[in-house]
Amino acid sequence: MSAESRFLTLLRLLASDPAAQGLQDDVAILQVGGTRLILTSDTMVEGVHHLPTDPPADIGWKLAAVNLSDLAAKGARPMGCLLNYALSGDDSWDAAFLEGLGEALSRHAMPLLGGDTVQMPAGSARSYSLTAIGEASGPVPLRTGAQAGDRLYITGPVGDAGVGLDLLRADARASGPLVDAYRRPKPRLAEGALLSPHAHAMMDVSDGLLIDASRMAQASGLAVTIDHIPLSPALEAVRGASTAAQIAAAQAGDDYELLFALPPTLKPPVRAIPVGYFSEGSGLSLVIDGAAIPLPARLGWEHG
Amino acid sequence: MSAESRFLTLLRLLASDPAAQGLQDDVAILQVGGTRLILTSDTMVEGVHHLPTDPPADIGWKLAAVNLSDLAAKGARPMGCLLNYALSGDDSWDAAFLEGLGEALSRHAMPLLGGDTVQMPAGSARSYSLTAIGEASGPVPLRTGAQAGDRLYITGPVGDAGVGLDLLRADARASGPLVDAYRRPKPRLAEGALLSPHAHAMMDVSDGLLIDASRMAQASGLAVTIDHIPLSPALEAVRGASTAAQIAAAQAGDDYELLFALPPTLKPPVRAIPVGYFSEGSGLSLVIDGAAIPLPARLGWEHG
Repeated sequence: MSAESRFLTLLRLLASDPAAQGLQDDVAILQVGGTRLILTSDTMVEGVHHLPTDPPADIGWKLAAVNLSDLAAKGARPMGCLLNYALSGDDSWDAAFLEGLGEALSRHAMPLLGGDTVQMPAGSARSYSLTAIGEASGPVPLRTGAQAGDRLYITGPVGDAGVGLDLLRADARASGPLVDAYRRPKPRLAEGALLSPHAHAMMDVSDGLLIDASRMAQASGLAVTIDHIPLSPALEAVRGASTAAQIAAAQAGDDYELLFALPPTLKPPVRAIPVGYFSEGSGLSLVIDGAAIPLPARLGWEHG
Repeated sequence: MSAESRFLTLLRLLASDPAAQGLQDDVAILQVGGTRLILTSDTMVEGVHHLPTDPPADIGWKLAAVNLSDLAAKGARPMGCLLNYALSGDDSWDAAFLEGLGEALSRHAMPLLGGDTVQMPAGSARSYSLTAIGEASGPVPLRTGAQAGDRLYITGPVGDAGVGLDLLRADARASGPLVDAYRRPKPRLAEGALLSPHAHAMMDVSDGLLIDASRMAQASGLAVTIDHIPLSPALEAVRGASTAAQIAAAQAGDDYELLFALPPTLKPPVRAIPVGYFSEGSGLSLVIDGAAIPLPARLGWEHG
């Protein structure tokens, strides 16, 4: 068990309030009068969640986007956020970070309400947290609600950000749509709002299609089969569409598309691609181009 | 202007929503239906906000307490919090941190609802943020509301934590009430709830009596005179009650008592000590034992 898993086990003992969802979801749900608030918080660390060479404006954008994506996955409207920021010791770096953060916030109508700014001792990695608050307009689809027979869909192709990251690791000056997918993910707020009344279960794909689908299945007490891995033309142009390329795309993180379970009688109310189905049992099965494929050793990004 | 001041200037451009209070207060106020939510977030960094030798359980306690203190200063009832935690690489340290955090949270009926756990690269300082949400039951006293003629009160003596920190710097094994004041501050939630319907302005004293009183005066567009610096018997036993000892106590941070402005016709509804008064004009004046005293060069803990 990793250090993070051990820590989460201890955290769950503290997080006994029903609003905490047993820390099984990416969000907490707090009932305030007649309103259901969705609360989420994400931290990014230099060298862990982004490359030290990534432009600060893109890092600021991404910090906002990953939190907005968690709201999107619950169909929530952004209400506000708080920023915890460790000054980098470089004013122009900090200003560019805020510019990118502000761009993502204003694009998605998320007001910045407060937070805290600190100095880190010399030599510490940059780190930043954003805590976002949203308002759920209707039912809140959790990870736990998938049902046997449900179809699994995703709002877009997978793996673009992962290839973008690989391209940047090889050459920090790389550019193009795959690099953009890695640096400027788009939170699917409109899609989330349209899907939340219908989806039995929903989450954003932050750690990879395979691992996130298997988490949804586990939380719902079901088995899941992935029988299609959607690739973008941009990814196919670089990596092709071999079985290995498809598996790599489904293991890569940072997609931030929405993954959701719908009953087979419903058509998705948004553009989405069917990727599999749920059935009684447990575990993840993978079918590529009609053939059952052994699972790779690593399903995706494992925290800690 | 410090790096933090420059950064805050940029942040204020982003934080234009009325709920952000222009980042003038320690909290944001978000109206949700008929409920006013109080939002606050504090980050603590090893070597900046606490000594590397401080026991982890005390650091966990303090992170909860400083956030609860911000809620107390607005008369808010704790509703929940989210923790952003950077794993230390030492499981027993992390477990002890959570134990102290959990102790403070359960003591003050603050549920832990979620958050995020990350790994930091080797060599980075430990850091942790807590974002707290409270519900205001009535009027929310801001920093800005003091009126000329108001009396200024504080809920307890000042400087204990500062001396406790000095004692620990000299000897990491020091103990006693002054060390406890530094390591285990007590958020004044009950006092805050009783005071909020009456106080024209209120804040917690986190950076020192002199600087925090001058911030309240500046936010209210007034002058403030501090004419009494309350010392505890424990502090007097170590430092005496000389003018220098009094000034040092009023410059020290980490008190977490509530500082509030009341009209002269009202008696405080809680145990509190009068420390001064507001008048037309601007700036801070200091009177000790009846004599006007020149202000020290450093009024308190200046961030950044």
